[in-house]
Amino acid sequence: MVLPENRSFRLKSKVLGRTLHTDQLQHERLNNATALAVFSSDALSSTAYASEEIILTLLTAGIGVAAFGYVVPITIAMVIVLTILVFSYRQTIKAYPSAGGAYIVTKDNLGVIPAQVAGVALLTDYILTVSVSVSAGVAALYSVFHGVYPYRVPIALAFIAIIAWGNLRGVKESGKLFAIPTFAFLVAMFVMIGVGLIKTIFGSGLEHVVLNPEQHDALKGAGAAGLVLILHAFASGGAAVTGVEAISNGVPAFKAPEWKNARNTLMVMGGLLGAMFLGISWLATQVQAVPTEGRTVISQVADAVYGNGAIGHVMYIFTQAATMFILVLAANTSFADFPRLASFQAEDSFMPRQLTKRGHRLVFSNGIVALAISAAVLVVVLQADVSKLIPLYAVGVFTSFTLSQAGMARRHVRIKEAGWRSGLFINALGAVVTLVVTVVIAYTKFTHGAWVIIVLVPILVWVVVRLNHQYETEKAELHEDAFRAVEEPILRRHDVIVLIDTIDRTSARAIQYARTLIPDDLRAVHIAIDEQHAAELADEWATLPLASLPLEMRLCPDRRIERSVLELVAELADDGQTEVSVLIPRRVYRAGWHKLLHDRTAEAIARTLADVPHANVTFVPYHLTRSSKGAHVHEVEHGAVSGTSGIHN
Amino acid sequence: MVLPENRSFRLKSKVLGRTLHTDQLQHERLNNATALAVFSSDALSSTAYASEEIILTLLTAGIGVAAFGYVVPITIAMVIVLTILVFSYRQTIKAYPSAGGAYIVTKDNLGVIPAQVAGVALLTDYILTVSVSVSAGVAALYSVFHGVYPYRVPIALAFIAIIAWGNLRGVKESGKLFAIPTFAFLVAMFVMIGVGLIKTIFGSGLEHVVLNPEQHDALKGAGAAGLVLILHAFASGGAAVTGVEAISNGVPAFKAPEWKNARNTLMVMGGLLGAMFLGISWLATQVQAVPTEGRTVISQVADAVYGNGAIGHVMYIFTQAATMFILVLAANTSFADFPRLASFQAEDSFMPRQLTKRGHRLVFSNGIVALAISAAVLVVVLQADVSKLIPLYAVGVFTSFTLSQAGMARRHVRIKEAGWRSGLFINALGAVVTLVVTVVIAYTKFTHGAWVIIVLVPILVWVVVRLNHQYETEKAELHEDAFRAVEEPILRRHDVIVLIDTIDRTSARAIQYARTLIPDDLRAVHIAIDEQHAAELADEWATLPLASLPLEMRLCPDRRIERSVLELVAELADDGQTEVSVLIPRRVYRAGWHKLLHDRTAEAIARTLADVPHANVTFVPYHLTRSSKGAHVHEVEHGAVSGTSGIHN
Repeated sequence: MVLPENRSFRLKSKVLGRTLHTDQLQHERLNNATALAVFSSDALSSTAYASEEIILTLLTAGIGVAAFGYVVPITIAMVIVLTILVFSYRQTIKAYPSAGGAYIVTKDNLGVIPAQVAGVALLTDYILTVSVSVSAGVAALYSVFHGVYPYRVPIALAFIAIIAWGNLRGVKESGKLFAIPTFAFLVAMFVMIGVGLIKTIFGSGLEHVVLNPEQHDALKGAGAAGLVLILHAFASGGAAVTGVEAISNGVPAFKAPEWKNARNTLMVMGGLLGAMFLGISWLATQVQAVPTEGRTVISQVADAVYGNGAIGHVMYIFTQAATMFILVLAANTSFADFPRLASFQAEDSFMPRQLTKRGHRLVFSNGIVALAISAAVLVVVLQADVSKLIPLYAVGVFTSFTLSQAGMARRHVRIKEAGWRSGLFINALGAVVTLVVTVVIAYTKFTHGAWVIIVLVPILVWVVVRLNHQYETEKAELHEDAFRAVEEPILRRHDVIVLIDTIDRTSARAIQYARTLIPDDLRAVHIAIDEQHAAELADEWATLPLASLPLEMRLCPDRRIERSVLELVAELADDGQTEVSVLIPRRVYRAGWHKLLHDRTAEAIARTLADVPHANVTFVPYHLTRSSKGAHVHEVEHGAVSGTSGIHN
Repeated sequence: MVLPENRSFRLKSKVLGRTLHTDQLQHERLNNATALAVFSSDALSSTAYASEEIILTLLTAGIGVAAFGYVVPITIAMVIVLTILVFSYRQTIKAYPSAGGAYIVTKDNLGVIPAQVAGVALLTDYILTVSVSVSAGVAALYSVFHGVYPYRVPIALAFIAIIAWGNLRGVKESGKLFAIPTFAFLVAMFVMIGVGLIKTIFGSGLEHVVLNPEQHDALKGAGAAGLVLILHAFASGGAAVTGVEAISNGVPAFKAPEWKNARNTLMVMGGLLGAMFLGISWLATQVQAVPTEGRTVISQVADAVYGNGAIGHVMYIFTQAATMFILVLAANTSFADFPRLASFQAEDSFMPRQLTKRGHRLVFSNGIVALAISAAVLVVVLQADVSKLIPLYAVGVFTSFTLSQAGMARRHVRIKEAGWRSGLFINALGAVVTLVVTVVIAYTKFTHGAWVIIVLVPILVWVVVRLNHQYETEKAELHEDAFRAVEEPILRRHDVIVLIDTIDRTSARAIQYARTLIPDDLRAVHIAIDEQHAAELADEWATLPLASLPLEMRLCPDRRIERSVLELVAELADDGQTEVSVLIPRRVYRAGWHKLLHDRTAEAIARTLADVPHANVTFVPYHLTRSSKGAHVHEVEHGAVSGTSGIHN
């Protein structure tokens, strides 16, 4: 028997593609170059705004052009952190070739609660990655087309919607699609850095950016940077190394030997990221780029490096386009990571269970939707402003880095594999360095917005732990003696109540079904709201050949039908030895609007009766098949497509 | 057994007062003076803006001070219409002493469809009455306190909310409360007119209003008014006579002999209304009041009449306060009329049946809420601007006047009571005059906004007729052979399906209940989404002492559980001779948020199965009683107040 599909399913299939079967779940294997493109877009793309944020932090302190003296040293410090991180994650990749995310590593080595801290911290940072990347992508766009600036929020939301839709359809981490923007960005950045280098070494050097009045104002002031300012600028640069963990999450996607290939790719990625970050910071210093509303640093650098010629202009546009695409792609990385991490936590009963459910296209749809909504809210609240988002960013990632490296250190001590001493040294160093960076970020950015995350993460950890308690309590209660409970004898009595509103075919159906049940006691009950109607009904009932089934009238002067039924049922079930079945005739309408013409008393009664143990509510359906004359043609069409006509008799 | 009440009921009782029992439905009898206050606030209050609208229409045409020459003649024309209406309604009161609204009269004499036109037209006008009166009341307020002007919309919405709340509580049309503002307004208006008259006859005459620049601009221009302009101004004044029908709606509330007292009150009301309308128009002409944003005509007139002395100022404030209160009270009249009329139409199956339902306090709550929302939307869309609302107003009322008077004329011809010839003359004159006014209003205000109503009313009539067809079709189908259907034998087979997700106490409960039903075939079915879980479940099931009940596995590779159950049930029920009961274990949680932790598959299955005839869905409840440790104290409190603990076993 082939049943027609309903409307919402057909709509879903149109938007998302046909349903995928569970056995279609599979993973692509990627070669190292493609894997680099797939897993590194988040990390590499952060160079698009990291140097800018360092400069911005320094300039805001009002030390004028002196600020540019600190940019390269601070970048070097962050590249050192990056190097330590890369070597640390080499260890993780080898130890956890199946899935080496911070959550798994922390849970395995430090316990369930620290793992929740890592998990929650990472989830908040994934949300921020989406908001930051998309906002920075829009900034790349409006740096070229200034007219777009007022529409940055809707454009950012559109990007989020498109990425979410793609992920709900189940975008395969298909290498080629991802490779293009990532390699284009690499080409754009290295060509820019190369041209800048050549001009400096062999030419007349780079000219400074032509500043507008606002930028001139930003350069006012003079002085030297204090330690706190330098640390703050360093913390702002921390955004550059987020995303480094992506490869360790994706080891199973590499070709065999997976862990070796993943390690090599990690090293290449680290090298590229470090070189680009340094190169861009150096260029920005050379041209004295002053970030301002509507013009990113990358855009100013590209402008200054390429000059005003036709080829220069083409290269400028290419640079901006590549930057925009890789940033949007970076948001996509979070759409792969967030739902997966949330499903891990949910499987451990530390997140709502719905997050473990694979949707129409085998992806964790609920996680995707949750991420999209959260990121969209952030974008709206902070008006797609990267500088406002950055202070919230990176605290979470560095917290998870610290926990993950500490977990690895513990593991070395515990397992003592060959070479564990050097492994311990690397991971312990990683843990200490990332802990220091976490503290620096939290301290220097606290008043700029990081406090939100610092307050939010512990609250969320409390919530997920609370939630876990609830799941565990439920599970314990539901499974206690369950095997014995299955054998329990049936209750002594079975009473069936049919609620009668009027004598019609729905009542007839309910009575027919009631008799099928062979109860100990069958009662027809009318809840009397309207005395006149009740009297008429009683008269009509008397004419029916149902001598064995008298109609019981239950006065309901306060017109609270649900309450009246509840009282009746509670009385019957009060002895704990009576199974009460309440049959509610329910009309099934052909068109949705027909339903609107009637109130939802049946549903309300069912909800109210849920309070009584042993009160079983049964909806006995009656299918209305006829259409009113006026809409005959329409209704027939509706029936043909609504998917319900096939099983109406 | 005393069952505790649930939270929503207790909240409702706090906000609305205790539940009223149906037999507490009663009507107050009013003496003529109080009845005047209760039923006339709508009609009398319209003098607060009617003269203003006439002046505004004339001034907008740019004929300058010449405009004031037309105000009194136009007012006289409208007072003549009023006189005809009053005499017409004298007839109606006598003929329909129980309820003489336009809907009843039209239905009785012209048929059901014309009655729907009258009904729909009146309902739209009741909505407008609320919007107009409340907006005009707020205008009276901001004429005194100019700072309030920017907040006029929220204030108007607050008034609507308060009136709606009062009506949901079931404000008795309690005379004293209503009498105060009505009589205060009468006093205010007649004192103002009296002082104006005395100053004109015995003093130096009234001085012109001191105009601001905006008002000076409005007086620019010169010329005479053309016929269309005069008719347009006349149409704008039509707002004054809306509400005249209220007394005929309320005849049963008078003391015996009801119809005589009602008639006398109608005459008094007509006299007062006519005199006030004329007086205010005359005063406005004398002082050359120019309505402007933030200053109503009444406010300018009162200002000019009373001058700047201390007593004058007190009288001015009193006038404004009385005006505001009677206007808000006028909105209250619609809250009595709209739900009653809607319930009449719903009883005739021309409106959604929910409108016939008396709520917590015996009022037609759904009608009250519908009116409040509609009026609030209008106020927001038109920004509480009386001048923008007025063009939409009065078309509906005059349409219903015409139908009602035509119905009365027809009645005289049909019944030929004593004196029917003079009655026919009066009502026929009334029908013709109101028809002419209707056409004038529709024509002159068409482009100013009346087109909305002229387009909307026929659409609404089509909708209610369509809706009636649907009700009638349903009723015919449901009652066809219903008495015979009640005797139909039960179906040949009864299959029971228990859906098993895991072996726990909810499944145990469902199996226990299933055995109670003594079915022909009892099947335990697991819809297998996760192969591993399914295999584990199968192994566990094998250990149960349920040899007679094997667990059937139904693979569901597309993870669409509802669909899978639907297919299973549709196959079983396909012969039309099998009653299928699907038992769905349902956990009943202690706290609302516990429910959020689980998806709503049970409800989704029930919804999907509604498509299959003879598929009866039973929810077998299992009550979770334990709380998780973390929230123990909170939960116990919750249980104690939630009203569910009393019947948990």
